[in-house]
Amino acid sequence: MNDRLTYLFRPRSIAIIGASNDQRKRGYQAVQSLLHDRYEGKIYPINPKEQSILGITAAGNIQDVEDQIDLALIATPAKSVPAVLRDCGKKDVKGAIILAVGFGEAGTHGKKLEEEVVSIARENHIRIVGPNTSGMFNTHHKMNLTGIRDIRTGSMAILSQSGNMALSLITEINAKSNVGFSAYVGVGNEADIQFHEYLSYFKDDPTTNIIVMFVDGMKDGRKFLQIAKETVEKKPIVLLRSGRSEKGRQAARSHTGALAGLSAVSRTAFKRVGIITIDRSDELFPAAEALAHLPPLRRNRVAVLSDGGGHSALAADALSDYRLSISDLSEQTRAKLKQVLSDSHTIENPLDLAGASDSNPAVFADCAEVILSDPEIHALMIVGLFGGYHIRFSESLKAIEEETAHRLGKLMKELKKPVVVHSLYASYRPPPLEILKEYSIPVHESIDITAKCLSVLEEYGDHLNYSHMKTDFVIRSEGKTLSAVREIFQRAATEKRKSLLETEAREALRLHGIPVTEFELAATGEDAVAAARKIGYPVVLKIVSPDIVHKTDVGGVLLNIKNDDAVRDGFDLLIGRARRHNQRAKIKGVLVTPMMPEGVDIVVGVVRDPQFGPVIMVGLGGIMVEVVRDVSFRVIPLVQFSAEQMVEDIHSKAIFDGVRGRPPSDKKAIHDLLMQVSKFVEAYIDTIAELDLNPVVVYEKGLSVIDARMFLK
Amino acid sequence: MNDRLTYLFRPRSIAIIGASNDQRKRGYQAVQSLLHDRYEGKIYPINPKEQSILGITAAGNIQDVEDQIDLALIATPAKSVPAVLRDCGKKDVKGAIILAVGFGEAGTHGKKLEEEVVSIARENHIRIVGPNTSGMFNTHHKMNLTGIRDIRTGSMAILSQSGNMALSLITEINAKSNVGFSAYVGVGNEADIQFHEYLSYFKDDPTTNIIVMFVDGMKDGRKFLQIAKETVEKKPIVLLRSGRSEKGRQAARSHTGALAGLSAVSRTAFKRVGIITIDRSDELFPAAEALAHLPPLRRNRVAVLSDGGGHSALAADALSDYRLSISDLSEQTRAKLKQVLSDSHTIENPLDLAGASDSNPAVFADCAEVILSDPEIHALMIVGLFGGYHIRFSESLKAIEEETAHRLGKLMKELKKPVVVHSLYASYRPPPLEILKEYSIPVHESIDITAKCLSVLEEYGDHLNYSHMKTDFVIRSEGKTLSAVREIFQRAATEKRKSLLETEAREALRLHGIPVTEFELAATGEDAVAAARKIGYPVVLKIVSPDIVHKTDVGGVLLNIKNDDAVRDGFDLLIGRARRHNQRAKIKGVLVTPMMPEGVDIVVGVVRDPQFGPVIMVGLGGIMVEVVRDVSFRVIPLVQFSAEQMVEDIHSKAIFDGVRGRPPSDKKAIHDLLMQVSKFVEAYIDTIAELDLNPVVVYEKGLSVIDARMFLK
Repeated sequence: MNDRLTYLFRPRSIAIIGASNDQRKRGYQAVQSLLHDRYEGKIYPINPKEQSILGITAAGNIQDVEDQIDLALIATPAKSVPAVLRDCGKKDVKGAIILAVGFGEAGTHGKKLEEEVVSIARENHIRIVGPNTSGMFNTHHKMNLTGIRDIRTGSMAILSQSGNMALSLITEINAKSNVGFSAYVGVGNEADIQFHEYLSYFKDDPTTNIIVMFVDGMKDGRKFLQIAKETVEKKPIVLLRSGRSEKGRQAARSHTGALAGLSAVSRTAFKRVGIITIDRSDELFPAAEALAHLPPLRRNRVAVLSDGGGHSALAADALSDYRLSISDLSEQTRAKLKQVLSDSHTIENPLDLAGASDSNPAVFADCAEVILSDPEIHALMIVGLFGGYHIRFSESLKAIEEETAHRLGKLMKELKKPVVVHSLYASYRPPPLEILKEYSIPVHESIDITAKCLSVLEEYGDHLNYSHMKTDFVIRSEGKTLSAVREIFQRAATEKRKSLLETEAREALRLHGIPVTEFELAATGEDAVAAARKIGYPVVLKIVSPDIVHKTDVGGVLLNIKNDDAVRDGFDLLIGRARRHNQRAKIKGVLVTPMMPEGVDIVVGVVRDPQFGPVIMVGLGGIMVEVVRDVSFRVIPLVQFSAEQMVEDIHSKAIFDGVRGRPPSDKKAIHDLLMQVSKFVEAYIDTIAELDLNPVVVYEKGLSVIDARMFLK
Repeated sequence: MNDRLTYLFRPRSIAIIGASNDQRKRGYQAVQSLLHDRYEGKIYPINPKEQSILGITAAGNIQDVEDQIDLALIATPAKSVPAVLRDCGKKDVKGAIILAVGFGEAGTHGKKLEEEVVSIARENHIRIVGPNTSGMFNTHHKMNLTGIRDIRTGSMAILSQSGNMALSLITEINAKSNVGFSAYVGVGNEADIQFHEYLSYFKDDPTTNIIVMFVDGMKDGRKFLQIAKETVEKKPIVLLRSGRSEKGRQAARSHTGALAGLSAVSRTAFKRVGIITIDRSDELFPAAEALAHLPPLRRNRVAVLSDGGGHSALAADALSDYRLSISDLSEQTRAKLKQVLSDSHTIENPLDLAGASDSNPAVFADCAEVILSDPEIHALMIVGLFGGYHIRFSESLKAIEEETAHRLGKLMKELKKPVVVHSLYASYRPPPLEILKEYSIPVHESIDITAKCLSVLEEYGDHLNYSHMKTDFVIRSEGKTLSAVREIFQRAATEKRKSLLETEAREALRLHGIPVTEFELAATGEDAVAAARKIGYPVVLKIVSPDIVHKTDVGGVLLNIKNDDAVRDGFDLLIGRARRHNQRAKIKGVLVTPMMPEGVDIVVGVVRDPQFGPVIMVGLGGIMVEVVRDVSFRVIPLVQFSAEQMVEDIHSKAIFDGVRGRPPSDKKAIHDLLMQVSKFVEAYIDTIAELDLNPVVVYEKGLSVIDARMFLK
């Protein structure tokens, strides 16, 4: 498959369909840009009305071209595309970029047109970029089909649903840094080639060392996660996400026709594969630049050098927000710093150089040397005036600042510990700061953004530390099913039921070792008494009927039944109520199950996400569930690591530690249950739609599933 | 008092003590800057070792100057300051700025020195700025004693605990905007003049129309709130706060010696007086600039104009984060927009102009005219490429963009609705964007920061809408006390108790109309039986002893006692347990109180904040209090508005609506209780240290205070 994408990213020949001599047209800009960049392949302008475009003879139709065509840029209107694509098919074109709007994003008619285009492409083995795309470029192949000018060559790839976001990033980087780009592709409507396929190309592209993404929705989230996991092992991915608000999702929908935007689970799912997700667009470039050039931060202990207390405090706040630890300096380091500064200087972290640095900004490098040599400090953030001492105080400090910048740069290269710099003179781009950039030290005007740079390095490092313990998001169902359970599902299917009876759900879970409470289905009052005696009093009685889904709504549950007579009465009562509720209800009997002691109530559920498939949920049960939805979600499959993290993500998790003299709850039992449910759903991935274990009561030792509902696809 | 500050801000004569001919010294820079700016008063350099400074004859001592001196800038080291200040006193100097460090921020010795300096100043009626300050400037008085160069004259005042933050702000504004400054003062250690006094000056300063503050701690928070409330009625205050993290607070402490940093209640307290609090330093300038020049946003309905779907979605997300409403456009507005664009263009909010704007950026103004004329739209945010169309597409678009910028500017002036602009070309400062700035339209490179501008305008407008319903933070205790309650406090004081007995606390609250449950203190078992019968079974029994504070820890509470015999047994049991716990415990008897039915448990408390004084707290009670501290705080006094807001601030407030078939809780009763407690604490402000009503049970109608503890100062 990547072979096909290679034709797109490194075509030997390109046809520009709708090539033009009108400078404002994309069909002109593409030819002009290929010529300007000295593209080394063949260029074939196609236009039935022109003799030549920019001095190149134009063909009237792509079929008139004698040469083999790898890539067609289709710059004609939407309605012409089916015919154009058929022509491309006849010419055995490998790939096509469709620029036009008016497809999936534009209502019913557009959707139909898009389907037609995709089917023509499939028939003719043409891979499609877009439609509704701003195009693509590959600087290393001297191919730029985007109309964006002044793109520096480098190693940052952009994979984006928005051409303007790519333009923003390129414009910002041109203004602020020396970073360059390897390639860009605007995925448009993802009609054929999807995010994960482009990602797979960039994963193996030797000219790319970081991938920047802008996403407001994607079609196959799970495949994307699988490829992303592999990619992140080799190079970082930074992803700017939009659509976290309802209005944002609406805007995204009308933009690319992306069905649902990115669902709420995407953030955690991306994190599990090590994608660095960004919500503020102004943090995208800083995060990407830092990740592209600096070593990941495997541990989170950082130091701050400042030249003023106000900046120190703001830096400490910003770093703390990102869970970075501004740790105490060792005795040895403190002693060395006292030598650099003076005995009376207060040595702490953040280290405030005010007084010492005004006349000699070299102390920044002197102190950085000491601090970064401390094995317990893993990164350094400098905040304040550095780079502008010669502006603020005396021009004579310029040489010292430049020399200091070189020393800081060399120090970072040598010790392989990230250094990031905030300077209030950053937007002036003074020479000392430009020197820092040459060493790939990020320099920003915002303290918050400078801190964010260290934060993303820590996030990436933390992922790499644990990535071997994380899932690859591949569903493995083979050999995990049981025939008895398959029969239960079969029976429901035969009876055209979309949900299991509680007894069936319990049986299926029990067979997979999930600790549901003991239960018996009783057909008569005497059966129920026998079951209750066997189970032991007190018991719970519940009506079992495929026609009654919400048992409590019809009074179909009786709690804390303490003796035989009460069981007989209860049995009759439940049958009576069920009949009153629905005369024709099929009644399977009454479920008898033990009345369990109190513990901490939780709920465990599984729902289907349109992009990622089955998602497992755990949260606190009882009244608080409805008041504050204190739950955490994970895309299935879980591994032990994520099962544990899930429980830690519950806001009120302290309740499991035991409060007010209650014993602690068995967290391990919750982890085990989550793993069992995840595996159960994996096994029957094509059958189970939703699952609801509510409540599950957790004890000091173990837990019990008290009620279970299961819905089928 | 402000008269004295006028001498500081508008001195007729300034002595520079420690004036110098060394360019690197503050004593040189001050003289140089006064000369350069053509300061119109008298300048007196003081230096015993120099004949003249920058051509002005130097005096050896301030007493040698014949003229009256309004202001002394003391640029000599800390240890010299007491003597210098005594000399100033003899000369009847009105105010002094002490630059030196080494005072309150620098340990015990520094604190003593600071106390000495303050006492000399008081004796001599000299008001002190600092020490540990970067100085002050007043551009309208041509006085700049900060050493910062290139300060534009304007109407923004800076009141800051950090000189570098002021420098950051000035540097950033010089690089990005046309804003100018009226005055600056670095408060330093607040040894004498405090934040609220400076604020009071700026409140009445006609040259100032916005006040920007940087604060990492303050000495008298309550007075500050009182002045701030008055100030905000006239001009906005934007406050950058540091110290929200433990490390940030540490850094702040060693910076200005500010005792505790800003406490957690500061944010809400600032909000109540209408201060716009900012946590990110990179949002300070944009927020201040917007507030300085744009009309406050009294309602929150905004529209977005973009030229790309990606930017639309990001803008919608950012605005939604700030609770701004991107509302649907009216039918009429939509019809008008269809005329401007085309029938096939999708008309929605955000409105994406892609396709229409590329060849004609004037559509931005065409659409803005239609949208801003809609009475239901109160502000406009433009995102994307505007200002750079001539860079991106064709130089020929420049004139259109400039004309469009003028139209947008005029539109804003005319309709008095804020317009803010994101442009990815902002850092290039192209002419169309410079034109927007001339009309005071903020232009930013970051979508998030552009949205933040509208957010602060909305926050300010919302405050102005409700400010008449908010407290002035003045404690009014006169005429509100009761003699019976004063006697209770007196008795505790006589017995040297720092806490009231539960019976005393209940009595004091009851006398002020607070609904504590009925109670009787029983000295014997038979008394207890009589009390229980009177109250009605079931009852609760509690031990009452000044020597037992934590009753439950010693088994001193018996719940749900149902008959006479159980009361007799319970009485003996409690006395016995108390004796076992502490043989010498003074036992006052046993409290008998009704066993109340279940409802929703809440807690109400009062604590003392070092900066703001008494603070009232309300939160959910029961087990969840300990698991998630779901509480909200307000500085006392409350008014009805804040009592209601406090309850709405509780995260799990949905529990009051009634869940799982439970009835809703009486929120009004909670508001009433909060108001009563606030007034009670106001009345005895000098006596009460802390108060703890826990639990309070809230019913469908009314509530009951079940337990009360009160601690005295």
